[in-house]
Amino acid sequence: MRAWLPYASMEEAERLAGPLPDGVEIDLFRGPARGWPDSIGEVEFYVLPYMLGTTALDRVGEMASLRVVQAQTAGYENIAPLIPEGVTLCNAAGVHDTATAELAIALALASGRRIGEYARDQASGTWDPQWGRSIADQRILIVGHGRIGKAIEARLAGFETASITRVASRARPGVHGVDELDELLPDADVVFLIAPHTPQTDRLFDAARLARMPDGALLVNVSRGPLVDTAALTAETASGRLRAALDVVDPEPLPSEHPLWRTDGVLLTPHVGGAASSFPPRIGRLIGTQLRAFAAGEPLLNVVN
Amino acid sequence: MRAWLPYASMEEAERLAGPLPDGVEIDLFRGPARGWPDSIGEVEFYVLPYMLGTTALDRVGEMASLRVVQAQTAGYENIAPLIPEGVTLCNAAGVHDTATAELAIALALASGRRIGEYARDQASGTWDPQWGRSIADQRILIVGHGRIGKAIEARLAGFETASITRVASRARPGVHGVDELDELLPDADVVFLIAPHTPQTDRLFDAARLARMPDGALLVNVSRGPLVDTAALTAETASGRLRAALDVVDPEPLPSEHPLWRTDGVLLTPHVGGAASSFPPRIGRLIGTQLRAFAAGEPLLNVVN
Ligand SMILES: NC(=O)c1ccc[n+]([C@@H]2O[C@H](COP(=O)([O-])OP(=O)(O)OC[C@H]3O[C@@H](n4cnc5c(N)ncnc54)[C@H](OP(=O)(O)O)[C@@H]3O)[C@@H](O)[C@H]2O)c1
Ligand SMILES: NC(=O)c1ccc[n+]([C@@H]2O[C@H](COP(=O)([O-])OP(=O)(O)OC[C@H]3O[C@@H](n4cnc5c(N)ncnc54)[C@H](OP(=O)(O)O)[C@@H]3O)[C@@H](O)[C@H]2O)c1
Repeated sequence: MRAWLPYASMEEAERLAGPLPDGVEIDLFRGPARGWPDSIGEVEFYVLPYMLGTTALDRVGEMASLRVVQAQTAGYENIAPLIPEGVTLCNAAGVHDTATAELAIALALASGRRIGEYARDQASGTWDPQWGRSIADQRILIVGHGRIGKAIEARLAGFETASITRVASRARPGVHGVDELDELLPDADVVFLIAPHTPQTDRLFDAARLARMPDGALLVNVSRGPLVDTAALTAETASGRLRAALDVVDPEPLPSEHPLWRTDGVLLTPHVGGAASSFPPRIGRLIGTQLRAFAAGEPLLNVVN
Repeated sequence: MRAWLPYASMEEAERLAGPLPDGVEIDLFRGPARGWPDSIGEVEFYVLPYMLGTTALDRVGEMASLRVVQAQTAGYENIAPLIPEGVTLCNAAGVHDTATAELAIALALASGRRIGEYARDQASGTWDPQWGRSIADQRILIVGHGRIGKAIEARLAGFETASITRVASRARPGVHGVDELDELLPDADVVFLIAPHTPQTDRLFDAARLARMPDGALLVNVSRGPLVDTAALTAETASGRLRAALDVVDPEPLPSEHPLWRTDGVLLTPHVGGAASSFPPRIGRLIGTQLRAFAAGEPLLNVVN
């Protein structure tokens, strides 16, 4: 039995994934930049290297023994079509909640309190205090009430927000359905967007929806870029009517010359929602659990196909 | 009876401070830049304009009828010596907790998640994802367990920190005394500094104390600049050993040419802890309450002299 794990050393693998099961041969593979392991025909359990997109599957056709692909991402819409028939695909749902929810709050607070502007002032040594906008007293709308949406809400608990309204695909007690979104937007000072990218959510925030947000409102997107119409958002922020704090954009990476980079009131991070110190211990625990279950012939978690 | 209130219009005064008591003449005064009201000899209840330092007291000697000075700040160490004998000084303790605690969290998150660096990358349209440091799993030390220290702790509740340790002037159940600080620092990944500036706290974080913080640790200062030895902190951050996120520095404003402005791993905001949208409604409620109590001959809140 052979597994490919995304670590730099066996010491790191054992520290993060815990005890590795007996009888499993391990190859360390962190991406094709340094070449592919010779065991490509024997790998059965393959943990995709992080942040490489689909290039980690470029030679999946040669993986004749492949039985399990474990992704390190929660979203898998780009990977799923490349997984061969009969191979089990597992995602990393839950693993990114901590880091992504934390970035969502960081973006909302940093935007309101002008931290991006002050960071730019540092280059010239400019001391220029300005009034900021608190998250306190604000009416919050969270679009997506899954793992990360709930983790965002949990983090807002201590911040004296005026209200928190939840939206998901379907209405249920305490949660509005997305069909009510148009009525909810005019009362939202801060919108957190954290739903998956699907045909239903593609351009969920188009020009008409953005127009329903009140003057001065903030859109925080930590989901996927295509949930927002970039041109419409660029217009609404360039005019100064809306603010935006975005970890994901469409297209991604955003081209250097795109006006959104340099629009006042727009704060951008380069899709780093999951890329923080809280991620390695959490994905390590999942990888270890999955590998031990696979070696023992037990059912896997997070099977998505 | 005459009061000076720091508003642009009577409409704003009534919206933020609530009903103004009958029989009180109001002058609007937001600082000497536009001149002093002619009623300077008659003002009895004077709300100091915000963020003007002591200049709002330059003509206090002419305020022959003065009975109450209401500050808009919690700290009053610079104002107190200027208040004439027999005049009551009230501070704004409690009013800034929300905005200041929120900024402390914003600084810690923004530093860990590199939001300052990404904001600077926006100018050149550079998409350069880097690993960040979560506040999750971190060991937190809060130095100062007063109103704002408690408000910081309340905000951390949802963030999966490894531990939160509290320090105040004296030990008591659940809170360490400042005499234990040296033993606590080696186990602190993030230190929030939020104690008042007093002779005891002056340079509380000197070179020796900073040296006790572990490699890679973050110092967040939202209290007063002189609690930290600026030269020692500059050395520890310039070497890359420590990180810092500072709303207050010594001297303030920090001179343009000071190296701290341009040290990697240092995030600076220009003393804006209280300067956010959550402040006007909260200070407005205090001003209204105090003015109505004064007019009714009832006791005032927050008397500090
Ligand atoms: N920025 C980053 O680095 C980063 C990191 C991790 C994840 N993500 C993105 O975040 C997404 C959400 O992650 P998660 O773990 O929270 O997912 P999840 O647990 O599956 O939850 C998804 C939520 O979105 C809701 N939803 C689905 N379709 C919707 C629609 N048409 N309108 C409104 N809400 C809709 C779901 O509604 P129901 O509850 O009704 O099913 C559910 O509440 C992922 O799909 C991924 O794309 C981004
Ligand atoms: N950045 C900003 O814009 C901003 C805004 C507002 C306030 N501030 C600053 O924040 C300070 C704290 O505000 P607050 O309202 O939280 O004050 P507070 O309620 O009076 O609490 C002060 C805390 O500091 C502790 N303390 C006093 N001396 C100490 C020492 N030598 N070592 C360790 N801890 C000590 C006190 O200990 P005990 O509990 O044992 O008495 C108390 O827990 C203010 O004095 C002001 O300078 C800054």
